[in-house]
Amino acid sequence: MGNCMGIRNFCDRPKNTNVRWRLPAVCFVWQLSMIILFGVFDVHVMIFVGFGFLMTFLKRYSFGAVGFNFLIAAFGIQWALLMQGWFHSLDYTDGKIKIGVENLINADFCVAGCLIAYGAVLGKVSPVQLLVMTLFGITLFAVEEYIILNVLHAKDAGGSMVIHTFGAYYGLSISWVLYRPNLDKSKHLNGSVYQSDVFAMIGTLFLWMFWPSFNSAIADHGDGQHRAAINTYLALASTVLTTVAISSLFEKTGKLDMVHIQNSTLAGGVAVGTAAEFMLSPYGSLIVGFFCGIISTMGYIHFSPFLEEKLKIQDTCGIHNLHAMPGVIGGIVGAISAAAATNTVYGDLGLENTFDFTGPFAKRVPTIQGGYQAAGLCVALCFAIGGGIFVGLVLKLPIWGDPADENCFDDEIYWEVPEDEESVPPIVAYNNHMIPNKHADIRESGHTPRSFANRP
Amino acid sequence: MGNCMGIRNFCDRPKNTNVRWRLPAVCFVWQLSMIILFGVFDVHVMIFVGFGFLMTFLKRYSFGAVGFNFLIAAFGIQWALLMQGWFHSLDYTDGKIKIGVENLINADFCVAGCLIAYGAVLGKVSPVQLLVMTLFGITLFAVEEYIILNVLHAKDAGGSMVIHTFGAYYGLSISWVLYRPNLDKSKHLNGSVYQSDVFAMIGTLFLWMFWPSFNSAIADHGDGQHRAAINTYLALASTVLTTVAISSLFEKTGKLDMVHIQNSTLAGGVAVGTAAEFMLSPYGSLIVGFFCGIISTMGYIHFSPFLEEKLKIQDTCGIHNLHAMPGVIGGIVGAISAAAATNTVYGDLGLENTFDFTGPFAKRVPTIQGGYQAAGLCVALCFAIGGGIFVGLVLKLPIWGDPADENCFDDEIYWEVPEDEESVPPIVAYNNHMIPNKHADIRESGHTPRSFANRP
Amino acid sequence: MGNCMGIRNFCDRPKNTNVRWRLPAVCFVWQLSMIILFGVFDVHVMIFVGFGFLMTFLKRYSFGAVGFNFLIAAFGIQWALLMQGWFHSLDYTDGKIKIGVENLINADFCVAGCLIAYGAVLGKVSPVQLLVMTLFGITLFAVEEYIILNVLHAKDAGGSMVIHTFGAYYGLSISWVLYRPNLDKSKHLNGSVYQSDVFAMIGTLFLWMFWPSFNSAIADHGDGQHRAAINTYLALASTVLTTVAISSLFEKTGKLDMVHIQNSTLAGGVAVGTAAEFMLSPYGSLIVGFFCGIISTMGYIHFSPFLEEKLKIQDTCGIHNLHAMPGVIGGIVGAISAAAATNTVYGDLGLENTFDFTGPFAKRVPTIQGGYQAAGLCVALCFAIGGGIFVGLVLKLPIWGDPADENCFDDEIYWEVPEDEESVPPIVAYNNHMIPNKHADIRESGHTPRSFANRP
Repeated sequence: MGNCMGIRNFCDRPKNTNVRWRLPAVCFVWQLSMIILFGVFDVHVMIFVGFGFLMTFLKRYSFGAVGFNFLIAAFGIQWALLMQGWFHSLDYTDGKIKIGVENLINADFCVAGCLIAYGAVLGKVSPVQLLVMTLFGITLFAVEEYIILNVLHAKDAGGSMVIHTFGAYYGLSISWVLYRPNLDKSKHLNGSVYQSDVFAMIGTLFLWMFWPSFNSAIADHGDGQHRAAINTYLALASTVLTTVAISSLFEKTGKLDMVHIQNSTLAGGVAVGTAAEFMLSPYGSLIVGFFCGIISTMGYIHFSPFLEEKLKIQDTCGIHNLHAMPGVIGGIVGAISAAAATNTVYGDLGLENTFDFTGPFAKRVPTIQGGYQAAGLCVALCFAIGGGIFVGLVLKLPIWGDPADENCFDDEIYWEVPEDEESVPPIVAYNNHMIPNKHADIRESGHTPRSFANRP
Repeated sequence: MGNCMGIRNFCDRPKNTNVRWRLPAVCFVWQLSMIILFGVFDVHVMIFVGFGFLMTFLKRYSFGAVGFNFLIAAFGIQWALLMQGWFHSLDYTDGKIKIGVENLINADFCVAGCLIAYGAVLGKVSPVQLLVMTLFGITLFAVEEYIILNVLHAKDAGGSMVIHTFGAYYGLSISWVLYRPNLDKSKHLNGSVYQSDVFAMIGTLFLWMFWPSFNSAIADHGDGQHRAAINTYLALASTVLTTVAISSLFEKTGKLDMVHIQNSTLAGGVAVGTAAEFMLSPYGSLIVGFFCGIISTMGYIHFSPFLEEKLKIQDTCGIHNLHAMPGVIGGIVGAISAAAATNTVYGDLGLENTFDFTGPFAKRVPTIQGGYQAAGLCVALCFAIGGGIFVGLVLKLPIWGDPADENCFDDEIYWEVPEDEESVPPIVAYNNHMIPNKHADIRESGHTPRSFANRP
Repeated sequence: MGNCMGIRNFCDRPKNTNVRWRLPAVCFVWQLSMIILFGVFDVHVMIFVGFGFLMTFLKRYSFGAVGFNFLIAAFGIQWALLMQGWFHSLDYTDGKIKIGVENLINADFCVAGCLIAYGAVLGKVSPVQLLVMTLFGITLFAVEEYIILNVLHAKDAGGSMVIHTFGAYYGLSISWVLYRPNLDKSKHLNGSVYQSDVFAMIGTLFLWMFWPSFNSAIADHGDGQHRAAINTYLALASTVLTTVAISSLFEKTGKLDMVHIQNSTLAGGVAVGTAAEFMLSPYGSLIVGFFCGIISTMGYIHFSPFLEEKLKIQDTCGIHNLHAMPGVIGGIVGAISAAAATNTVYGDLGLENTFDFTGPFAKRVPTIQGGYQAAGLCVALCFAIGGGIFVGLVLKLPIWGDPADENCFDDEIYWEVPEDEESVPPIVAYNNHMIPNKHADIRESGHTPRSFANRP
């Protein structure tokens, strides 16, 4: 309203030529902030619906999946706003942190790392442990991100290194320290049922659809952003096909496995994270997606059992296949494509714009940048593994209320679970032939009927 | 297309300096309308998916929840376009209502009030009653909104008063008039099952994620809008943590209750509705969210039984805890923060811009504005309670086909429900020990198999 | 970043007046591309979540619905990028296809046709057949779209002809060629259960909400786009009410049928597809929606059985009622409203802008345009039916691994389905009275337990 009036006022005194730069500039800045604002919501959907529902695949841990994901994210974004504020937007004149819309999207990115880590320990830790894990995770993330992006000046638009590599190895290290040799005791709950697999597909699809937004949200606005969206889109599309192919190839009678479709179809998006805003070319993106679909699916089939049996890493969601391997690949692809960048491909100013070779980094050349990218990957790995082992040891203290081996993957432990007529057939209760139905017994003993007060 | 050509033409005759205001102005106006356009879709998602799925928690009323929500919304937006057209965008020269994209978002806002009211009577009324309730609800809404926003010139960007307080007390008043002393007869259906609680979480998350969009959609564009989004985001994040804390504190053995996670986590967004675009500061938003999480969760635990037993108000979804109390709190917070606004905090023009102290309201000062805000809250309450009692009496007429006490919360009454192999185990039919499985009997007698014609 | 600097530089040398067109122009072009970018995501949601979940209604084919939908879409968009590239964006100087964000949205549109066709054969074909169907479908689509939009210069913003009529008759023709006289053998699986109907509503709502985006995504930017969004919104709202009315009118005891709510509520959006960007007026849109709700619901009740029994077309999802009939109606409405367009209604330049009467088509008048619109509808029908019969014959070859008549609509054939405790009560296994529970037997013999390796 006020703005339109402003325009009319300008017309009355057309001599103030200065204004002609001001108005377009306002348009510009505003446009930028709107893009970021919408970026926030797209990324928001991935964090809350995408990650939350992706983990609902377990037959009796859907409340924990979506509920604790919600808790981690809501706690994490607050802590992330503070941590990132100290590192990036602290106003030294008054000691206050200014929060703008860009900070919200950065907070979402921060939280993504912790949600990835949650995938490794899903069903085996208490909500208190999750909050501790998130507190340390966000802190470590803020430091490693600062080192990688600001000190080393590596580029990582979609966070292959900063988010995925860090988050995945952080979670896997924690899971390694918290290894449960007798996890078999709750093996009957460590699997999906038909409906829970459909719920998980909600998560998969929302992640898949908005991944181009995620990878392009903090890319250089303009060309870089479009490039990031298109490269991610193509890598993801190609991953779906190779995932289906490999899944069918290695299952008997050529059937498809929902685990692969839910997870490996996303690996391409992880792997183009770093290089998304570079001139990867459609061809390059398709190739990255192609190989990641293969590697990730093969990971679920061959590498996960090895991880658990030999390396003693229990990885509930298989984040090693979805985030860790593709994240490292993404870091390497990024380093190589940065090192191989030339003026011919990027154009005169494209190189400077894409890699921000300005200010203290004005003298950097692509080959050197490639080296710094590789260094960034190492930093992410060190923080993840070192931090993960430390946090794992903290979480091993017997004060956090974690579940017993036979109660893992069971919502009953931390949630009031409604009486489920579907799963415990009434006949068990009434029939004279009382059957030793263990599952039904556990349920009944642990069950507290919803009190009248709750929902009258 | 045509526009680019226009630009080229401008270049041919660079002397028409007037144009230099026209082009940016077009950018500006367009940008505004695009923001509104995207706002529409975000709010759309809340209305149709958010409210619809939030109410699917009942074990056998998911069709009614999502289906009647759809019906109310589709009917309501049409009626709202007309009603709001008469009040706001009637062109007196030709007697026609002009519909622009802004009208669509206002229609969505209108409908939100009726969907909130639906939460109180969920499962206890017929679709015909819902349509009558919506017809009157939208009409009352249009009048009270006009009085509050235009006559009193109160501000209410996120609708704490106009939408939430009005909608909730409208629904609660109707529910009070329609009190069913023998509702216990359908008590076995007034609860959730595992899967229905997961479906409800879809609603919760979509509401939670897009709430910042909702509260900022009609805020003053520019700074006010960003402020509204950020304040809402922070209030919501903080509510999640206190909801989890209180839920765990008051349930035995510290378990969490899904009812609280589904509902109370949203209370912070309701309570910052009015003040979202004010200079509430991040700190203030976090505090509002903090207390609302506590109040709303305590409401589910202690206040809902009191409402039902003593005040004879049966509130299926607990909208008193999610919308009514937080809405009133929001109105009060708005009045206080308006009264406390100063030039020091808002800057010279900020005060005028935020509160629109222009035209006939040019002389208003913050303290007076605070009084008008409080008056707005009273208007919302009067319209809600008065209108609700009237509409409740209309709905008590025995002509609307409402369900008997023993058929409440049951989709069978108004929907063709598919035969559900999962819930009625086949053994009941074949086993010699015919068990008096009441649930199965009800289902079978009431069931009409899907005819060949429907889905051949 | 670089842009802001640019602005500052401009200020230093204010004499370069040329710049004053450049900056707004950049704003403009950017804004356009952002609109398209967000359009992509909205349409993306319809393709992956909307179509995917809409088809999950079958009790044991949800994996196939959402999984194969994902596969078709991911394969289809890649092939569509190539096909549309050859037709529209081939750079003849270097023989390369330039991919921009607009291409992504066009690819999504392309794929929509194939997903519609999938609805007719859902549950009756193998994934290999689906890929073949998609390969030919996209190819045919690209050619017919080129003829209709470029050669005939017909307008079809929302694709009533190009997408819906083509996709639906393509699928129906294939289904006709692949007619299975003994499909009754898997009749017990050709229906929904309670939860699967709720899942399908996720699809319905996401389609419904974003349909205005879909119809306006490629409309003329600016006025035309807003008009398209508003017209679609109104048509959809009105369809919901008539669908509910007709569904209740024709079912016994006035119950509602979920099949109608899931599908027919969308018919209005299909039918205003062509005319959405024309001056249809709110009144006209409401009328179109009104009649389409009636026709589509009546189609499910009366026409689908006729199609199957007399014409031997088995249409699993009833796409004839949702896409074919409303698509043809949309084409006709488009032709009539184009022929009836006048300068009085559209304004001087409106007619030229809306119908693009420029270049080689500068001499066209509305009545002639109406004729070309009708010709476009015929082209769509010819390509659909001719192409469908050809592809159907190809798919009849006994090399594609399609399911036997008794295995249709069953995920077991192509997916590793998790053991479903809910549906096969444990008592069947332990009880001495071994009951001839056919459903449980099929499940057990076909079931492969999820190997340890898959999700350790």
